[in-house]
Amino acid sequence: MEFNERLREVCRKKNSLLAIGLDGDLEKLPPFLMDFESPITEFNKSIINATADLVCAYKINTAFYEQFGIQGCRSMKKTIELIPDDVLIILDGKRADIGHSSAKYAKAMFHEHKADAVTVNPYLGHDSVEPFLFDETKGVFMLCLTSNPGANDFQFLKTGKGRLFERVAERAAAWNEKGNLGLVVGGTYAGELKQIREIAPGLPILIPGIGTQGGNLEKSLRLGCDDKGESVIITVSRSILYASDDLEFAAKSRDAARQMKDEINRIRKS
Amino acid sequence: MEFNERLREVCRKKNSLLAIGLDGDLEKLPPFLMDFESPITEFNKSIINATADLVCAYKINTAFYEQFGIQGCRSMKKTIELIPDDVLIILDGKRADIGHSSAKYAKAMFHEHKADAVTVNPYLGHDSVEPFLFDETKGVFMLCLTSNPGANDFQFLKTGKGRLFERVAERAAAWNEKGNLGLVVGGTYAGELKQIREIAPGLPILIPGIGTQGGNLEKSLRLGCDDKGESVIITVSRSILYASDDLEFAAKSRDAARQMKDEINRIRKS
Repeated sequence: MEFNERLREVCRKKNSLLAIGLDGDLEKLPPFLMDFESPITEFNKSIINATADLVCAYKINTAFYEQFGIQGCRSMKKTIELIPDDVLIILDGKRADIGHSSAKYAKAMFHEHKADAVTVNPYLGHDSVEPFLFDETKGVFMLCLTSNPGANDFQFLKTGKGRLFERVAERAAAWNEKGNLGLVVGGTYAGELKQIREIAPGLPILIPGIGTQGGNLEKSLRLGCDDKGESVIITVSRSILYASDDLEFAAKSRDAARQMKDEINRIRKS
Repeated sequence: MEFNERLREVCRKKNSLLAIGLDGDLEKLPPFLMDFESPITEFNKSIINATADLVCAYKINTAFYEQFGIQGCRSMKKTIELIPDDVLIILDGKRADIGHSSAKYAKAMFHEHKADAVTVNPYLGHDSVEPFLFDETKGVFMLCLTSNPGANDFQFLKTGKGRLFERVAERAAAWNEKGNLGLVVGGTYAGELKQIREIAPGLPILIPGIGTQGGNLEKSLRLGCDDKGESVIITVSRSILYASDDLEFAAKSRDAARQMKDEINRIRKS
């Protein structure tokens, strides 16, 4: 089954458009976890056990694991093994290279790390993204408009036929031959999200930046969802992961995740 | 010492602008290496021993190691340990994320993997690149114009004040406050290299794409070098690594590297 269809099915089955970003930060973990051999893995295990029924996907940002070298590599592998089969794994690596090298990254992400989907960077163009699209059952979310201040440096540049991020959305719609390509659009730009949805009506959109980064949930859903109230994934990290740092942290994270899931469903069904 | 100055010093001391890309491909290694526990590490060891006096840097593309998971992680670590102190290590990961996450990648690259320099992708703008620039002794090469066909998709788009790659070069010149930022420009676009050199006169330029990808060495050097015949690194992988696949492969790679180094010096000094 094509990834984008598979994603829709998972979201329907779980009745959830919420993805949690498993971006564990040593400085923010509950202090008592520091006694474990791998505090991050232990933290992820608790979060996964407490929230797996509430989410359609976990997003794993590779930066948070690579910073610890081989130990981080191991922690990422273990974390992925802990994720139940009915939840998708989005490896957020934002990779891209010339085709020959992108093919190696695709192998790393999909075969070594068993990802269901990845994020990629569009700057190098079609042949840098194509190797990630090879298997129609595996998904690719291409950066379009990011939630950080630096998005202004290049993504908003006017190009004659629309701003750069609009060109990226337009190319993504054209490159989606196998039904497995989507976009990443920060929740901090609700107005532009509407334009992107018009340019690429059929593509799923991964929306980070809600919560800590100040994105607007209601606007993101109203403008980002397709006419069935689907095709958007809201990905939240810090405001769920660090809901508390005491012994009950996992239960508090579950409460925060449930609130977010319910709020998403309330908005999209209203 | 600022990285860009350090790079110039290494190039002068070694009398070389050549970097070898240690991108070992299992399918292309000399077959007898398959008996070793880590054929890639063994291959790299032979190449490093045979060529370290001829190069200013080794470029390590992380894709080629990540494809093997934890084993690849280990192989990359060992390879880096084998590189002598007088040769720079360029980790070619083309990473970039929002600042908070880029800081983790910078930690991975510079502290965990002991890189002297990295490559980054400009799409997310200034705050995604800034964490890599934090330590002035460590270098950053930002993708500007890449050697693959997909470069045409976005990098050549006209933006009102120049094409996208020209804007990237102009921004890089402005962001180079600590003397440690450079650019990546494929050797397949000699004409554009001249423009980039004019936009960013003081920045070192890493030039891949000579050899297998068909870039032009003479034009790349004449148009890319500064007025002292410096500030260009020519990075070559396949045509040196796979000069032969017999027992004498390392000696053949040395011959190919020496020829390339001498040819570079002949052109830049003529």
